[in-house]
Amino acid sequence: MSILVLYGSQREESNAKKLTQAVLEGIPHHAIDLRDCTILPINDHRHTPGGFLPVDDDYDTVIQEVLRHDILIFSLPIYWYGIPGRMKNFVDRWSVSLRDSRFDFKEIMRRKTAYVIAVGGDNPRVKGLPLIQQFQYIFDFVGMTFGGYIIGQANRPGEIEKDLRALAEAEQLNRILGQTGEA
Amino acid sequence: MSILVLYGSQREESNAKKLTQAVLEGIPHHAIDLRDCTILPINDHRHTPGGFLPVDDDYDTVIQEVLRHDILIFSLPIYWYGIPGRMKNFVDRWSVSLRDSRFDFKEIMRRKTAYVIAVGGDNPRVKGLPLIQQFQYIFDFVGMTFGGYIIGQANRPGEIEKDLRALAEAEQLNRILGQTGEA
Amino acid sequence: MSILVLYGSQREESNAKKLTQAVLEGIPHHAIDLRDCTILPINDHRHTPGGFLPVDDDYDTVIQEVLRHDILIFSLPIYWYGIPGRMKNFVDRWSVSLRDSRFDFKEIMRRKTAYVIAVGGDNPRVKGLPLIQQFQYIFDFVGMTFGGYIIGQANRPGEIEKDLRALAEAEQLNRILGQTGEA
Amino acid sequence: MSILVLYGSQREESNAKKLTQAVLEGIPHHAIDLRDCTILPINDHRHTPGGFLPVDDDYDTVIQEVLRHDILIFSLPIYWYGIPGRMKNFVDRWSVSLRDSRFDFKEIMRRKTAYVIAVGGDNPRVKGLPLIQQFQYIFDFVGMTFGGYIIGQANRPGEIEKDLRALAEAEQLNRILGQTGEA
Repeated sequence: MSILVLYGSQREESNAKKLTQAVLEGIPHHAIDLRDCTILPINDHRHTPGGFLPVDDDYDTVIQEVLRHDILIFSLPIYWYGIPGRMKNFVDRWSVSLRDSRFDFKEIMRRKTAYVIAVGGDNPRVKGLPLIQQFQYIFDFVGMTFGGYIIGQANRPGEIEKDLRALAEAEQLNRILGQTGEA
Repeated sequence: MSILVLYGSQREESNAKKLTQAVLEGIPHHAIDLRDCTILPINDHRHTPGGFLPVDDDYDTVIQEVLRHDILIFSLPIYWYGIPGRMKNFVDRWSVSLRDSRFDFKEIMRRKTAYVIAVGGDNPRVKGLPLIQQFQYIFDFVGMTFGGYIIGQANRPGEIEKDLRALAEAEQLNRILGQTGEA
Repeated sequence: MSILVLYGSQREESNAKKLTQAVLEGIPHHAIDLRDCTILPINDHRHTPGGFLPVDDDYDTVIQEVLRHDILIFSLPIYWYGIPGRMKNFVDRWSVSLRDSRFDFKEIMRRKTAYVIAVGGDNPRVKGLPLIQQFQYIFDFVGMTFGGYIIGQANRPGEIEKDLRALAEAEQLNRILGQTGEA
Repeated sequence: MSILVLYGSQREESNAKKLTQAVLEGIPHHAIDLRDCTILPINDHRHTPGGFLPVDDDYDTVIQEVLRHDILIFSLPIYWYGIPGRMKNFVDRWSVSLRDSRFDFKEIMRRKTAYVIAVGGDNPRVKGLPLIQQFQYIFDFVGMTFGGYIIGQANRPGEIEKDLRALAEAEQLNRILGQTGEA
């Protein structure tokens, strides 16, 4: 089982990243930081004759990497109570991959398990719940298993270290993921 | 009372736009289509010495227009069960405006009323509810009144015309907005 | 198509009932007011040897009536942001019907369509959304189609008449239900 | 700080109760099992001349006990995706206490902190989220602090012992509550 983390943080010192690193301590994994990628908003040509046009950015590289792994971890700040635009642009583009003739997107995705690690500053364990529900709908749509989520509370850089509950959950998930092994 | 619509659709023939036009029939208003703007994802420098750096895109033009109006209408497709990345990038950047010394962002925003007109294809009146909850949190954060929302069901271009319930709600909202008048 | 309304209001002059009557104007239907019934809380004997014990109240009469109809309308106040206890006790008892050897509960329920008409006083179009999500899960569990819902805003008796949006939606639903006819 | 647990389980061997006992291990507390009480559904006389009539059941005894404590723990199964009817009847009756002239209900409640410990069998960490949102609205309404929640996954009696994540969270909460001490 190989693991890919998608980091969707908007800043360098990210609490979501720190919490994710606690989850993955000692576990081999790959990671992509979306801040290092250019992923443009989708232009929806589902119903245009000719369909989607090629887009010159990093989407294809990232999605090819996604397709190669068994476990996906979405690591993100809860930004304005939702998925940050940068990461949402990536998910929105799945509409293109659903129509990509090179692979059967749903067929590949439905064999994967996804986890969400989200950190917010404003009562995230309640105000972050719509975001969790959305991820469930997203994963359901492509048939992917939603393995679980951790919501952490933090605002200033490093503050996640005070959220003992989130850290305890990270330890728990670390144990589970550690047992699945790495191919 | 002057009205500004923010169109967040990802395609030219948008059901959300059609539904919004039914809401605004005969009512003077301004509109910005985010597809005509470049709005980059935020790089969060809230906690970086020096703070946010100037960004060379259309965000400032759009937010200045937002600040000038009394009523904001967010018109958007429900995309992967959430706000499209293009529009989310715009909202994410409010974190910069909150720290803009040229104006008191919250003080201006809290005098406005916002409406949401969202159209989705997959059981949107249930699966679109997390998105509505997020908008409530967003508006609460800046103190803006959430005047109401309409959720329409449509997928292919033009299909919104069959959603008689959404059209009845649009007519209702048209009457309400028509009475508020235009300054 | 025969229609059964379950009234879950906690008082005589109910805004939810008034809104429901607007939905059903001119449409033949049956109705049960749960205030006229005694329905005790479930004692969960799913995992007790011997299973559920007979309960001496009106549950069986009500559920037999439910099973006979094609369309169910749950008409209720949003009470403390959820289903009133009286109506919730009724739904909780479905756990008994799922194990009733006289009929195949899910098999009968999955052929029905359910509607929800809910009225609340505290920002119900947002704060009532968790209740709508719960009804979706409830209906999903027994395989019943969720035909739609109307959320009205009202507090004092009669106040629903000022909620023009809810009344417009009621008119819309009246047209739809009127066309399905009565067997 | 004195602690009161309200048990809302529908059966004797309750996973929610087991999880709650893990939370409270070694911590002095009081407990009320709502199965030992008769609490009738509310008859809403808020707008009736004469107001609410006295009801001959255990509500008053329970609410007096609630008022005496600093920390309330709602321990419940997620039943049909919501609060069990038995416990919901109790909360619904708060509408009477809000008008009780013997005490200022909100004034007393807003000084308390509430926790929710909920166990469900069908994907509770996602499908139980509307229930959590409802508790937030309930606690907000009376001004009570929502200290946190644990969602466990279990169905058959005793199964909660396999939910290591919920047990880890229980341990965490045990540490927090243990530090607050008992008056």
